[in-house]
Amino acid sequence: MKPKYVYFDHNSTTPIDPRVLEEMFRFFGTEYGNASSRHTLGTHALRAVETARGQVAELVGVESKQVVFTSGGTESNNLVIKGISSGSSPGKILISGIEHPCIVKPAENLKYQGWMVEKIPVSSSGVVKTKTLKQIIDSECKIISVMLANNETGVCQPVSEVVDIAKEYDAFVHTDAVQALGKIPVSFKELGVQALSISAHKLNGPKGVGALILDKRLSINPLIEGGGHEDGLRSGTLNVPAIVGFGKACEIAHQNPTKIKKNVAPLIQALDKKLKRMGATIFGCNETRIPNTSYFSLPGVAGETLVIELDKAGFAVSSGAACSGNKAGPSEVLEAMQVNTDIAAGAVRVSLGISNTLEEVMGFCDGLEQIFNRLRTMSAIA
Amino acid sequence: MKPKYVYFDHNSTTPIDPRVLEEMFRFFGTEYGNASSRHTLGTHALRAVETARGQVAELVGVESKQVVFTSGGTESNNLVIKGISSGSSPGKILISGIEHPCIVKPAENLKYQGWMVEKIPVSSSGVVKTKTLKQIIDSECKIISVMLANNETGVCQPVSEVVDIAKEYDAFVHTDAVQALGKIPVSFKELGVQALSISAHKLNGPKGVGALILDKRLSINPLIEGGGHEDGLRSGTLNVPAIVGFGKACEIAHQNPTKIKKNVAPLIQALDKKLKRMGATIFGCNETRIPNTSYFSLPGVAGETLVIELDKAGFAVSSGAACSGNKAGPSEVLEAMQVNTDIAAGAVRVSLGISNTLEEVMGFCDGLEQIFNRLRTMSAIA
Repeated sequence: MKPKYVYFDHNSTTPIDPRVLEEMFRFFGTEYGNASSRHTLGTHALRAVETARGQVAELVGVESKQVVFTSGGTESNNLVIKGISSGSSPGKILISGIEHPCIVKPAENLKYQGWMVEKIPVSSSGVVKTKTLKQIIDSECKIISVMLANNETGVCQPVSEVVDIAKEYDAFVHTDAVQALGKIPVSFKELGVQALSISAHKLNGPKGVGALILDKRLSINPLIEGGGHEDGLRSGTLNVPAIVGFGKACEIAHQNPTKIKKNVAPLIQALDKKLKRMGATIFGCNETRIPNTSYFSLPGVAGETLVIELDKAGFAVSSGAACSGNKAGPSEVLEAMQVNTDIAAGAVRVSLGISNTLEEVMGFCDGLEQIFNRLRTMSAIA
Repeated sequence: MKPKYVYFDHNSTTPIDPRVLEEMFRFFGTEYGNASSRHTLGTHALRAVETARGQVAELVGVESKQVVFTSGGTESNNLVIKGISSGSSPGKILISGIEHPCIVKPAENLKYQGWMVEKIPVSSSGVVKTKTLKQIIDSECKIISVMLANNETGVCQPVSEVVDIAKEYDAFVHTDAVQALGKIPVSFKELGVQALSISAHKLNGPKGVGALILDKRLSINPLIEGGGHEDGLRSGTLNVPAIVGFGKACEIAHQNPTKIKKNVAPLIQALDKKLKRMGATIFGCNETRIPNTSYFSLPGVAGETLVIELDKAGFAVSSGAACSGNKAGPSEVLEAMQVNTDIAAGAVRVSLGISNTLEEVMGFCDGLEQIFNRLRTMSAIA
């Protein structure tokens, strides 16, 4: 019998919580109204959207009106970079060296509009160097974007420190909290940022919906214009079922950081212990990481090969960020960490979910060891 | 007993076809992978996306690679206007006087980048004046956008004629086919346009997904950048369940124009006959309309009031385009048609779906007449 397929790729996407899907069903069924319509069906849809907005707001500790619904984290990140920069005269934008491409590309394109774009370097263990930030920040700096937890390494970033440094220069600070939300507590107020991006499908909600959380005093230009939805900041028919699901996922996620710390962190510890015994390099191992992620490299084995072999053995993991099927080459995050290219080529990411078990992790370790030994023997023979 | 609630607002949004929802379920359940992941779950998701891409392509008669999935019609329209204009030196953009705000706003904002923006006027019955287009088009004209069927009046537009006129000037032609698709046959090739926008939730598919169909030889700048999905034209984790649903909705929709012509058009004819007897003005009445729409005004009764009263009587209709809850004032489409403001203030749109019946339409006519007589008596007493 084929063994159960085990999913260890929760940083790519997560299964929808059945309670989330149940909430969504009604809006796929009888409550199919357009939230902008004035009739009963429309009013029901609008009410559901506003309930969801409150649920999202509560999870990150803001008021409902600070939540702008988007189609996902990528759109939220594009909206904030383009929406803030287009409302300002050109200046300097600083982004960390390990941002997601959906921050990097919009930021780098600002060069064509006269902006200076600089990357804040990270340490060899993947932490943004706030000391360097202090040196490169100046009065020209208008925007800073540093993610809360890295999608590949899972390493948490010193966003509050960045905010403290930025204050002196009156620079706007955004954080991409897509990978952090639901894994560690995320408070907009405590972080002190002016904007924060989140996505539903990373916390057992549906794909196709996310949000940009904005400081109340902030004005920003829309990326997608039209009917004037979301206070003019994001037009387009509201994706009611997805928004409702996002709200429910956020409601459920209040308990996640505690559960993950209690149940998932020990699994990662066990995995890391085993990996070290196998001679693996674990990236960001001694830093504070979101407690579900282990990003490692085994000597002499390509990450891509391991992903394929592990898949055959019944384990879904990633060889890096699952951003695009067309992506090739080494991880830019590991490059920024100045990881040796041979080691970087071996990178494999395990990202657990709340329902993963020790048995699954132990099964994974056994499978990994067998594959590793087999591949090493093969390469020795060759 | 409360009578059945009758939905006559299909141009705002449509209920999901149960067959569509059934296809989506699997991707809300066990097949939750990220289409960019290389493991089995990811591969399954990618395969489903490509099947859906083929289904969408087939409905509009293009190759799969011409389909760019977006979050909906509004994003598709923003993408095409911004993505084409940003890759060109400033010139002239011509849009019809009755375009959706998600064309109007991106187009008008091009003024700030040195573009000339002009509107092609429409006749009093809501048809774009191609004669005027011939007069105002010149060698500066780079982009033309004319919708295929208007969302309010339902009036079909002479897009092929626009294409013929544009050819001489080598201007790019886009059509917003959001309201046309699934109601009349839509062929990218026959229209001769370079780009075409569509949306799933207008044809019994899910909200939160649409597509921009592009000429194969065309290059366009992305609006949402990041991981490089959709050949770099639209980044962000693919909304797999929604895309799968869109594909299925398109597969089903092949038969819709025939069914609508046979079953729905006679209902609109019956409605129009009754409305005329009540003294209503029916906008675009003598033009070719998508066969599910009747947009009318009864003398002396505000559209908003009628929508509310009809809702109480169990009928969902619209007082215009359901674009935004914040929208107020008269319809810009009717303004472009130079409709008298008193008549425009009375505008009510009925938009039927495939499953609506003659009994429902007759019930609506009775209800409307009762409400109309009551409101007239009230205003006479006042």
